[in-house]
Amino acid sequence: MNESLNLANQQVELTHAIDSVWVALCAALIFQMEGGFALLEAGFVRSKNAVSIIAKVMIDIMFGGIAFYIVGFGVAYGKSNGWFAFDFGISKEDLGLGLTISNSLFWFIQMGFAIAAISIVSGGVAERMKMWSYAVFVFIFCTIMYPLAANWVWNPHGWLFLRGFNDFAGSAAVHAMGGFAALAGAIVLGPRIGKYNEDGSINAIPGHNLTLSAVGAFILWFGWFGFNPGSTMAAVGKWDLIGKVATNTFLASAMGGIATIFYTFMRYKKVDITMVINGVLAGLVAITAGCNVVSANSALLIGIVAGTIVDMAVVIVDNMKIDDPVGAIAVHGVNGFFGTVAVGLFSEANGLFTTGQTDQLITQILGVSVISIFSFVLTFVLFHIMKRTIGIRISHKEESAGIDAVEFGVEAYTTFE
Amino acid sequence: MNESLNLANQQVELTHAIDSVWVALCAALIFQMEGGFALLEAGFVRSKNAVSIIAKVMIDIMFGGIAFYIVGFGVAYGKSNGWFAFDFGISKEDLGLGLTISNSLFWFIQMGFAIAAISIVSGGVAERMKMWSYAVFVFIFCTIMYPLAANWVWNPHGWLFLRGFNDFAGSAAVHAMGGFAALAGAIVLGPRIGKYNEDGSINAIPGHNLTLSAVGAFILWFGWFGFNPGSTMAAVGKWDLIGKVATNTFLASAMGGIATIFYTFMRYKKVDITMVINGVLAGLVAITAGCNVVSANSALLIGIVAGTIVDMAVVIVDNMKIDDPVGAIAVHGVNGFFGTVAVGLFSEANGLFTTGQTDQLITQILGVSVISIFSFVLTFVLFHIMKRTIGIRISHKEESAGIDAVEFGVEAYTTFE
Amino acid sequence: MNESLNLANQQVELTHAIDSVWVALCAALIFQMEGGFALLEAGFVRSKNAVSIIAKVMIDIMFGGIAFYIVGFGVAYGKSNGWFAFDFGISKEDLGLGLTISNSLFWFIQMGFAIAAISIVSGGVAERMKMWSYAVFVFIFCTIMYPLAANWVWNPHGWLFLRGFNDFAGSAAVHAMGGFAALAGAIVLGPRIGKYNEDGSINAIPGHNLTLSAVGAFILWFGWFGFNPGSTMAAVGKWDLIGKVATNTFLASAMGGIATIFYTFMRYKKVDITMVINGVLAGLVAITAGCNVVSANSALLIGIVAGTIVDMAVVIVDNMKIDDPVGAIAVHGVNGFFGTVAVGLFSEANGLFTTGQTDQLITQILGVSVISIFSFVLTFVLFHIMKRTIGIRISHKEESAGIDAVEFGVEAYTTFE
Repeated sequence: MNESLNLANQQVELTHAIDSVWVALCAALIFQMEGGFALLEAGFVRSKNAVSIIAKVMIDIMFGGIAFYIVGFGVAYGKSNGWFAFDFGISKEDLGLGLTISNSLFWFIQMGFAIAAISIVSGGVAERMKMWSYAVFVFIFCTIMYPLAANWVWNPHGWLFLRGFNDFAGSAAVHAMGGFAALAGAIVLGPRIGKYNEDGSINAIPGHNLTLSAVGAFILWFGWFGFNPGSTMAAVGKWDLIGKVATNTFLASAMGGIATIFYTFMRYKKVDITMVINGVLAGLVAITAGCNVVSANSALLIGIVAGTIVDMAVVIVDNMKIDDPVGAIAVHGVNGFFGTVAVGLFSEANGLFTTGQTDQLITQILGVSVISIFSFVLTFVLFHIMKRTIGIRISHKEESAGIDAVEFGVEAYTTFE
Repeated sequence: MNESLNLANQQVELTHAIDSVWVALCAALIFQMEGGFALLEAGFVRSKNAVSIIAKVMIDIMFGGIAFYIVGFGVAYGKSNGWFAFDFGISKEDLGLGLTISNSLFWFIQMGFAIAAISIVSGGVAERMKMWSYAVFVFIFCTIMYPLAANWVWNPHGWLFLRGFNDFAGSAAVHAMGGFAALAGAIVLGPRIGKYNEDGSINAIPGHNLTLSAVGAFILWFGWFGFNPGSTMAAVGKWDLIGKVATNTFLASAMGGIATIFYTFMRYKKVDITMVINGVLAGLVAITAGCNVVSANSALLIGIVAGTIVDMAVVIVDNMKIDDPVGAIAVHGVNGFFGTVAVGLFSEANGLFTTGQTDQLITQILGVSVISIFSFVLTFVLFHIMKRTIGIRISHKEESAGIDAVEFGVEAYTTFE
Repeated sequence: MNESLNLANQQVELTHAIDSVWVALCAALIFQMEGGFALLEAGFVRSKNAVSIIAKVMIDIMFGGIAFYIVGFGVAYGKSNGWFAFDFGISKEDLGLGLTISNSLFWFIQMGFAIAAISIVSGGVAERMKMWSYAVFVFIFCTIMYPLAANWVWNPHGWLFLRGFNDFAGSAAVHAMGGFAALAGAIVLGPRIGKYNEDGSINAIPGHNLTLSAVGAFILWFGWFGFNPGSTMAAVGKWDLIGKVATNTFLASAMGGIATIFYTFMRYKKVDITMVINGVLAGLVAITAGCNVVSANSALLIGIVAGTIVDMAVVIVDNMKIDDPVGAIAVHGVNGFFGTVAVGLFSEANGLFTTGQTDQLITQILGVSVISIFSFVLTFVLFHIMKRTIGIRISHKEESAGIDAVEFGVEAYTTFE
């Protein structure tokens, strides 16, 4: 009897250890996606602003991470009343989430999701936003905005969680959240100088370094295999799911890229590599909500759709004269929305296309709509408040000379010597 | 009794979980090697073709991965008759491989090997091959060619597996397979314009960005610690092997680089950093077959030989007027061949140098020869068929202007602003 | 009874497997930090020396790793008499460290720490040191110098270990060790041509590629989540610690960066992104000793101090006319020292500020002082010996033309074509 008890206790210890190894390493993969955001965005902007965009992603990490430590985590995972929770720092008490990992480790991986969400915004406001105003927004976003969405979706007392909303790794809570904040920010800031002409025509402002963007894209792609599979938050009892999630994640991303290759080739007679990168990311964003509940073949379809609508969305956003230098709105906003809805269409258990049921679909549409509107409206209001107080836009002079030279006193690249 | 049974069942569950964590994370490391291939190759070519080579590696991932999903995986790991197997998609049934991980997860890691193999080819055909023809080849390679080799080597019904062929992580099945396809492709395509002069002299065409190549090299080096140790496909019962494999992998790579430093310094009075990178990769390729069965001191020796013959092979290939812009043939073909043979020389159990036995050596030579010839011949034929139908080579105009401008409508680097 | 025994034996096997998975993957993360050192340093120097600094980090890996294989590991972890140990290669016998992983795997992760320590030095001697002399120093450093420090700190028979010195992942043994060697090297080498004017004024020599440095910084940041949490050397029985270590590591790094943002903004009216990167690294270095024993709030404080003193230290070092091109002394030396001392101030069990006790503080100051002086003096002597024999400094002509062109016969970037 005692022997059995000892053995059983030891098995509990082993379970804690396995799950902690899994989550700690996935959390590290998620964390390093920040390098991906920084370099992808840096390559897509002009060299005169490359340092400033990297600085902004570092602010995402540092201000965002600290905000999520002080207040955000408690808002998301404290004892929720369905809409809201509150605790300072990392609670020592059982969070009631059925975790086998420590609260600290859970904080570390959740922090990665928080700073991923805000890093989406840095792309949408690139090349024209004041650094300090951006830092203020980052702090507010990670203190209260993102944590509320996470609370609704993933806290067992959250209202969307209780409705059965399925947003496995955050197409809604992370990507739509970030993408619609980027939309609001881009609108309030207005376009970069020289982006739109008075006659309504549009100037392309190509990025300065596509190989750097490729570095960023590969880092993000890599990290997604922590982002999605790691959202199991455990391996014991879920090892089967890990393989399914990884496979679906890959298949959607590959088809997203392939769809973009064909779309841009047919439409422009040239393959647009910038859009292929965005197509891959769109596939990744779109499968993020449903990678745990859709079949591999559905993942292929979701990828195809994602890779197609991202191309269209980039053009539509541009034609609306909303200047999104890196395509953050199309990739994360539009495909975060689509991916969340796709769960209701393709879920093996209760999707419309797979089972004819509509309940899940309605819940998915409701949830992602509330989150998207919530993010858009709050960001819109906050940006307007900042605009009238501390200001959000750099001076014309600074914008012409480049943020790097004026605000940071450096150039990304010195004359080659 | 029931308690013991419960405890035993739970131990099985823990085993599944541990092995899945191990394989999922190693698979992610293997996957991110694609970024390494892309950036290494991009840095080694001229800037006018940097985007196109990155696009080709993305095609490796996307077309290759999807091909390996639809058909390739079934060819490799379906019920084999010794030479061939067939299943669509990812089978739900037990593959008979004694796996403790899910079929999906096994697919994910095996897909990483498949796209690594084809990514070797992209380097050999760089700067002159049509994108769509390359995409067709990628699809065929990952649908049938690589999967057949994997079947022979790793499927328990494969004829080389049954002969006791030891190719732990794929010096033959991945690297020789890719390297000899690169050789055939480079031959059929012919050299880049301006590479070889009419008087027989050779022009060096230096890469445009060695720091970018270094980024790629470090990514590949990192990923190899998933590639080789992850080939255990399990940690329970094999944890001892993981350390041995990781250590051997490091030692061979370090000695490969050191050998190249001394070789190039003695021969050219300068250390050739491009070749040092290739020397490290050569050591990695060469230890890949035998890292599970050779001693640490043998790994040092294998690395020294690999780092030496890669230098000689690059020169020999060039003197044969075969234009291999990134050294793929010398690194992966020649050292994949050597590394496979080295198992028969250094294996602790039955190597010629260690035990005086010759059986393993004969099997190793036979296996890698068949795979190399198979890959060379099929690629040679396929490239000729494509040459006479859809064409494989870009126009002279395009080659002069750069693939990036003509086929992708971009430049990797815009004028610095 | 037999059943229980079988189950118990299997639990031991599972423990080995879990711990091996954890250490193998953390070791891979630590290994890839070398790419981070290389690219960070390459971006911070002039483009004419970018290849040479990458080559030097490759020498750190290759010569350092092999030296640590042949002799270093035995010096560090052989049977110690308190100050010294000796074994060749990787011992097959139990090292008496209570390890659940294989000696090979333990070697692999410890090798990562050794080459991290020496890679710190490559930055301090950048742009002016002879490659072969550097290689000799790397070999000696990893054969005897670093291993002695590791012996004292982490070998259970080491004199600092026995005194209760707490240097969890090596603020002293790795970072102060490397940083004070960099200090000695920079002093003996003297400054780069044109760095200090005769009138006492100082010329800034900006790095050539800040986006490349950012790639390196993100790689290092990522790798630190293997470096610190992986220093548990096990997950079973320590899973709780993993989360604590990861969280403390993040918090200190974020506050290090934030402190630098505020410091440089207040002092220079501009945010210095180079220093922000160094501030993040300073926070990481400083928390490395105590991440296992300080609270999260203490980690925030340690980060703030680290991010502040790194800014001051860079200026002080420069004013002393010691030319440290990448800030290695301030980041690793000064903050390695500070971080080790901070354990004695903030340790939850026996820190001065937390408990009023002074024993731990005294031990920490003693240990890090001995290690710093040891590293400084030996490096100083070795550099002087090399200076009078094989020479340590490149010629003026070579320094003007760039090491890449003269010693390597290449340029990092060719004319864009």
